[in-house]
Amino acid sequence: MEQQLVDALISPEGHLEILSKAEVARLLDTSQGGLYNIFRNCALAVLNSGSPLDNGKELLERHRSFQISIIQRERGIKLDIKGAPSRAFVDGVMIKGIHEHLFAVLRDVIFVNDEVIGNPRFNLTTSEGITDAVFHILRNAGVLRPMTNPNLVVCWGGHSISREEYDYTKEVGYQIGLRGLDICTGCGPGAMKGPMKGAAIAHSKQRIANGRYLGFSEPGIIAAESPNPIVNDLVILPDIEKRLEAFVRAGHGIVVFPGGAGTAEEILYILGILLHPENAGMPFPLVFTGPAHSGEYFERIDEFIGDTLGQEARQLYKIIINDPAAVAREMQAGVRDVRQFRKDRSDAYYFNWALKIDHEFQQPFLPTHENMRNLHLERHQPTHMLAANLRRAFSGVVAGNVKDQGIRAIERHGRFQIRGDRTIMERMDALLASFVAQHRMKLPGTVYHPCYEIIK
Amino acid sequence: MEQQLVDALISPEGHLEILSKAEVARLLDTSQGGLYNIFRNCALAVLNSGSPLDNGKELLERHRSFQISIIQRERGIKLDIKGAPSRAFVDGVMIKGIHEHLFAVLRDVIFVNDEVIGNPRFNLTTSEGITDAVFHILRNAGVLRPMTNPNLVVCWGGHSISREEYDYTKEVGYQIGLRGLDICTGCGPGAMKGPMKGAAIAHSKQRIANGRYLGFSEPGIIAAESPNPIVNDLVILPDIEKRLEAFVRAGHGIVVFPGGAGTAEEILYILGILLHPENAGMPFPLVFTGPAHSGEYFERIDEFIGDTLGQEARQLYKIIINDPAAVAREMQAGVRDVRQFRKDRSDAYYFNWALKIDHEFQQPFLPTHENMRNLHLERHQPTHMLAANLRRAFSGVVAGNVKDQGIRAIERHGRFQIRGDRTIMERMDALLASFVAQHRMKLPGTVYHPCYEIIK
Amino acid sequence: MEQQLVDALISPEGHLEILSKAEVARLLDTSQGGLYNIFRNCALAVLNSGSPLDNGKELLERHRSFQISIIQRERGIKLDIKGAPSRAFVDGVMIKGIHEHLFAVLRDVIFVNDEVIGNPRFNLTTSEGITDAVFHILRNAGVLRPMTNPNLVVCWGGHSISREEYDYTKEVGYQIGLRGLDICTGCGPGAMKGPMKGAAIAHSKQRIANGRYLGFSEPGIIAAESPNPIVNDLVILPDIEKRLEAFVRAGHGIVVFPGGAGTAEEILYILGILLHPENAGMPFPLVFTGPAHSGEYFERIDEFIGDTLGQEARQLYKIIINDPAAVAREMQAGVRDVRQFRKDRSDAYYFNWALKIDHEFQQPFLPTHENMRNLHLERHQPTHMLAANLRRAFSGVVAGNVKDQGIRAIERHGRFQIRGDRTIMERMDALLASFVAQHRMKLPGTVYHPCYEIIK
Amino acid sequence: MEQQLVDALISPEGHLEILSKAEVARLLDTSQGGLYNIFRNCALAVLNSGSPLDNGKELLERHRSFQISIIQRERGIKLDIKGAPSRAFVDGVMIKGIHEHLFAVLRDVIFVNDEVIGNPRFNLTTSEGITDAVFHILRNAGVLRPMTNPNLVVCWGGHSISREEYDYTKEVGYQIGLRGLDICTGCGPGAMKGPMKGAAIAHSKQRIANGRYLGFSEPGIIAAESPNPIVNDLVILPDIEKRLEAFVRAGHGIVVFPGGAGTAEEILYILGILLHPENAGMPFPLVFTGPAHSGEYFERIDEFIGDTLGQEARQLYKIIINDPAAVAREMQAGVRDVRQFRKDRSDAYYFNWALKIDHEFQQPFLPTHENMRNLHLERHQPTHMLAANLRRAFSGVVAGNVKDQGIRAIERHGRFQIRGDRTIMERMDALLASFVAQHRMKLPGTVYHPCYEIIK
Repeated sequence: MEQQLVDALISPEGHLEILSKAEVARLLDTSQGGLYNIFRNCALAVLNSGSPLDNGKELLERHRSFQISIIQRERGIKLDIKGAPSRAFVDGVMIKGIHEHLFAVLRDVIFVNDEVIGNPRFNLTTSEGITDAVFHILRNAGVLRPMTNPNLVVCWGGHSISREEYDYTKEVGYQIGLRGLDICTGCGPGAMKGPMKGAAIAHSKQRIANGRYLGFSEPGIIAAESPNPIVNDLVILPDIEKRLEAFVRAGHGIVVFPGGAGTAEEILYILGILLHPENAGMPFPLVFTGPAHSGEYFERIDEFIGDTLGQEARQLYKIIINDPAAVAREMQAGVRDVRQFRKDRSDAYYFNWALKIDHEFQQPFLPTHENMRNLHLERHQPTHMLAANLRRAFSGVVAGNVKDQGIRAIERHGRFQIRGDRTIMERMDALLASFVAQHRMKLPGTVYHPCYEIIK
Repeated sequence: MEQQLVDALISPEGHLEILSKAEVARLLDTSQGGLYNIFRNCALAVLNSGSPLDNGKELLERHRSFQISIIQRERGIKLDIKGAPSRAFVDGVMIKGIHEHLFAVLRDVIFVNDEVIGNPRFNLTTSEGITDAVFHILRNAGVLRPMTNPNLVVCWGGHSISREEYDYTKEVGYQIGLRGLDICTGCGPGAMKGPMKGAAIAHSKQRIANGRYLGFSEPGIIAAESPNPIVNDLVILPDIEKRLEAFVRAGHGIVVFPGGAGTAEEILYILGILLHPENAGMPFPLVFTGPAHSGEYFERIDEFIGDTLGQEARQLYKIIINDPAAVAREMQAGVRDVRQFRKDRSDAYYFNWALKIDHEFQQPFLPTHENMRNLHLERHQPTHMLAANLRRAFSGVVAGNVKDQGIRAIERHGRFQIRGDRTIMERMDALLASFVAQHRMKLPGTVYHPCYEIIK
Repeated sequence: MEQQLVDALISPEGHLEILSKAEVARLLDTSQGGLYNIFRNCALAVLNSGSPLDNGKELLERHRSFQISIIQRERGIKLDIKGAPSRAFVDGVMIKGIHEHLFAVLRDVIFVNDEVIGNPRFNLTTSEGITDAVFHILRNAGVLRPMTNPNLVVCWGGHSISREEYDYTKEVGYQIGLRGLDICTGCGPGAMKGPMKGAAIAHSKQRIANGRYLGFSEPGIIAAESPNPIVNDLVILPDIEKRLEAFVRAGHGIVVFPGGAGTAEEILYILGILLHPENAGMPFPLVFTGPAHSGEYFERIDEFIGDTLGQEARQLYKIIINDPAAVAREMQAGVRDVRQFRKDRSDAYYFNWALKIDHEFQQPFLPTHENMRNLHLERHQPTHMLAANLRRAFSGVVAGNVKDQGIRAIERHGRFQIRGDRTIMERMDALLASFVAQHRMKLPGTVYHPCYEIIK
Repeated sequence: MEQQLVDALISPEGHLEILSKAEVARLLDTSQGGLYNIFRNCALAVLNSGSPLDNGKELLERHRSFQISIIQRERGIKLDIKGAPSRAFVDGVMIKGIHEHLFAVLRDVIFVNDEVIGNPRFNLTTSEGITDAVFHILRNAGVLRPMTNPNLVVCWGGHSISREEYDYTKEVGYQIGLRGLDICTGCGPGAMKGPMKGAAIAHSKQRIANGRYLGFSEPGIIAAESPNPIVNDLVILPDIEKRLEAFVRAGHGIVVFPGGAGTAEEILYILGILLHPENAGMPFPLVFTGPAHSGEYFERIDEFIGDTLGQEARQLYKIIINDPAAVAREMQAGVRDVRQFRKDRSDAYYFNWALKIDHEFQQPFLPTHENMRNLHLERHQPTHMLAANLRRAFSGVVAGNVKDQGIRAIERHGRFQIRGDRTIMERMDALLASFVAQHRMKLPGTVYHPCYEIIK
């Protein structure tokens, strides 16, 4: 069934389907500057939803014949799709959620390229300009909702987790949903899917018809983490740094489930930001949680943080083991603090303008072999800068594990080499080794070949 | 947690909250003719949702202090609840779905008593009168929707099933939901909950915001089979026969999962009706299904049917083992046939007026010791009449197992005695024994004490 | 164009279309006890909307060939209409508002007959029973809305008024609508239509999408006062007394525009009720208003009230001439008082249970020649009883002017004779004469032949 | 009352209220390049809705103290308004429709400046670039609706018309609305308001809850033609030429009522376009209509067109006098042709991409004294070019009559001088003189001082 391919002609049902002639032309332009490739590849990832494949490169190679084009019709545009994975369809009809995701991709690809990149109004070399771009992308996607109380809980965690951990993420999502909170994740499988499923059932019991299941992705990762169709607002940010910024500016609190290198990257990102002196005193609920047997996992993470970023960093989160309702109550209380804090300062509820994100955390990090080798992983720097660099190191590992470009680079040039202070390197080595041992680097059933080498 | 009790003041949010002074008075009337007891007991059952308790008598005894009363307020009525089970609440706030169920109970208790019983317009001694009453109860509950294509799949099966079977019912519900069909069940746990959960996730993926999860219950069973809060249209029919009639007139097809005596009762009911000569040729999709290891269960049922009702009865259903998508496709195709059949005859889609239900199947059967003893379980009668009587036998067993009145009767007078043709009795004995062996008579973890004795 | 007749097959679009077989049978039953005639005649009146004809008898005679019947179809019922006035259609398609009214008629005719009359739960010989019936009819029509603040302004006044007065009623409706208040009238032309038109424009400017334009009619008057299609909730009460009760129990204040005998009847009705000792202290905003030139009209009414019912009665209303915004502000303030009063007493907002309506005002008055002759129009009775009897006198005049049965009675037996205390009779004679002189008894362009004779 | 001023703090209720910090800064920037002035002046015009003032300059001068600023609040932005005309308020609360218009102004001012002007993607020196900009402005305003059949009737005509003509425009709007068509106008008083009012009543009778009343304005004219609050989609195009292009690309047919110079400008614009050889054969319903006594008016227009643009131009429209239903039927039939035409060619329904608009008609015409004097009003040019130049001449007259800048220019430099072929000049002189004689140049009650001089 995996290998069956379907052709389809898809009409949008939302308001996305009105394109100008020029926009259609750009989307169909397969030349270097055209948008065709990025649109096609994201579309393919969306259509691959639910597949047990987390290898971006393999996905693209398997579906070389896949094509997508836009047709102008009297009532709007249609998408003409050739060679789509059959799993996106039920008896030949595309699943509506996937259908919507295709048009979300279309919307974001057009917006980012037409309205953000190349529009002199956005100076993407400055911190303000990047934040402004993130804001506009989210606003254009309809994700920023005024007149609503803060209620968006971001859930981070691995795409490759055990059945027990997965069930636990569902239960946490359920308890969060029962309390009227919405969910935002990176929109792949595992810890990104479980909380949404749980929340969907809870929302249904609470008759919350407009529950939100936000998924923030980016072109590099989407092929490895296909959005699940429960996601009812999918946004494709242009790169991983803007995606992370979107999480922390649009979300009102974060729950971290067990995961692998990507989860470590996310943890270092948020800690690095919260450690910035200008963010002192700003409430930001942050909970690490897992079922009973995952307790050890978070002990390792906690130790790593203590050893590298220090005690101050450990004050920024709570670890709650095996108690979904407590996690939900903690987030609910924390989100209330966020509300009060912003109310007192007349800050927007829907976008955390006040959060200081250092330019270091915003600049796209390209995980080339050279960049990885030159990472500044020394203790002689402000803690939040060390966090920034550690974040990059883990980001590179994620790329080498699952992203199309990263995998190709490893194939060509061998493993990434990561260097730095011995004490940091040892900690990092141990942590990554534990991820490997716990099968957190790849989907179960596949053998993990490390893409990195720690130079101690 | 089970034992914690909560007091609450509940406002309705729908349109149910407008009561006349006279209606409020009748609901608060605890005298013999008053409605207080039935309303209180159904309300308690609704509030007990999710409890691992399937014993109606025990529920009522545990919650003797539970009280509910109606308060008239300027914007409508409120319900004042004392001593409710805490599981209906999240951090002190009642779950919305349960909240709605309370008012559904209120609506149906009032309607049945004020508009049906005692209204000379309904002659409940005739077959037409009973059908008319069922129609009016469903219409008043807003459950009959015109202008919609047939899409209601009734799911029957045990409230006490294995984890594997439960997961299977979810998967079948998911496949049914992906195809845009809605679910109707008896609204308790097990096979009555799983399909709704699966369909809810599928509807969310298909962006079906108005998916329907209908639950039909009755005052005698609701305490043992508390509605789960996903049910978004709960109807309390006055007795088990009207509840069964509601299923077959409002539903467009039936899926039967493994279960115990109640499931056998339901199977005999629908076969007895479809065997009626006047229903010959009427399409009615009927599928028995379960996971791989339940295959044997349906073989036994199938044999029992073949041995008692004959080959003709076996033509009326399909058995599909371990293939959720095939079940869903079968129902979808069957429902399409139903649609064509009714379209050709200008029959209503929302209520199957044309189905002949013999008066025997409509008359409430009171499972007293005497009635059980006198059941006519002989071969010398039309097949559909034998089905009617077998149905009653199983109905009595259900009452003795889980219903408040039945349990009390068994406690007082000992086991029911069931008599009849030896070949029938042997078959029945074997089937019931297999239910016991498979733990299908009670929730897991409890010991089953048979409430019947087969006199061969 | 008037005379063109149209045949049509009409599908309902709301939820009214689900009828049981028995209900359809009763509606098609043309025998004495059947509902066909009342349904047919109300349906004809609804279809005649906008016609410059206020003579119920003439309408029925003109359209003898008109027929309506019900057809059961797979998706619900349809109405098969033969010989309908073409004014209900635009290029052959029925105007939606009229379309809805037809089904409102159907709903009320069925409900009143099936659920109210003949249901032993309603004892229509008692005051409580009548009020309960009015409540149930309004609730069944979906007109009682909980969770909403009081905002329903009843507008009374003539169906036959001058252009200037009509424009004034529109302006008052506009000012009322700008303040978020809804309108309820008797739903014919003139003062019953103008305020709705004005409010509709105001609601559109205020983006009030769910503005309500309630029309309360009854089978005897509807032929003379066809509902205008702006009415989006039409209710057919069974008789004039229940219609009046519906106005004062569902409305939160009343504006009276100039009118004729019917308006006088309404004024006497509300004053009679408010004069009842048990209603003392209950806020009930009541304003008489008209454009500058109508000032004299209200002076006459005011004098008549002072002379017959006394000073106390004159305290119950305000007269505001030529100031629409002041009328609207007065109603807004009055409705706020009503809200506070009910809030303090936990009275329902949507139905004024606390208002005492004497049984005298509830009993249907049949304006036969004998009943008219025997009216007790003497001073030796409590004021509110005198108001009740004066109300009946004017009611009889309305019947003789515009109602089918009344006109036939006058044709057969000559004018009604009205007797009583000389001082009352003189005042009454003068008032009626002034109505005639001002052309307030019939639509303009027709000559008025009095249907009564005052015996002084 | 006119002179009363109100201060208010206004929250948006739609989705417009999410502004970035940079957007707020630009709106508050009162420097040359900032947006404050244009935003303030359009806002003032919107607040002046319903005023009997059609002089842009006078409006601005009367309300020098008016200020508007943006405040960021936790739930979104608010507008802080000082010194607003009290007519926008009802008892101190702003009318919702006006409230919405303020935010529509905000939206368009931001979009035009941030996303269109200065964005290299729009080349406004080319015809395609201008059309693309118009498309994006309309799309951003949510005005282009896919999946809908063509149904938008543009109504043009004078803001200063007689009571009889105004009532006629209402009746035409009513007949159009009864047929399910929507209305688009220039959104001021007179012929721009009447059709919307009529259609609003008709839509209410037809239960069309989502009827559209589009108003297209531009910063130069809005002060003279304040939008009426029925308009539920207000769009501020950047200049008169883009506004005209918006009308003809978004509308599906045009009804022209009597008017003055502006109406003549509009007629010449549409005729000039339809006369372009590339538009031959494209259906475009165009009707000139008025009540009986306006017949002569259209005779004059018709003659003028025949004498200047020739017979071919006269084939492009129909003149229907005093028959609102016929006008509506004509538009309905014409719109159906438009639908078929576009369906056959797979052209969009919501934007007429295929219409050829010569660059001459798109370039903003600045009515300076010099430009007016140099207009090329000779016969030796293609007909559609002559139409373009005549259009400019009338455009200049409108500016001199009612626009702030035009009035100031006339005050400073005296009347515009218009020159050209004698036969054309004579016709033009006669036509303009007839407008003056018929009081079509200014609102009634004011004396008209011509702003032009025809040099024959």
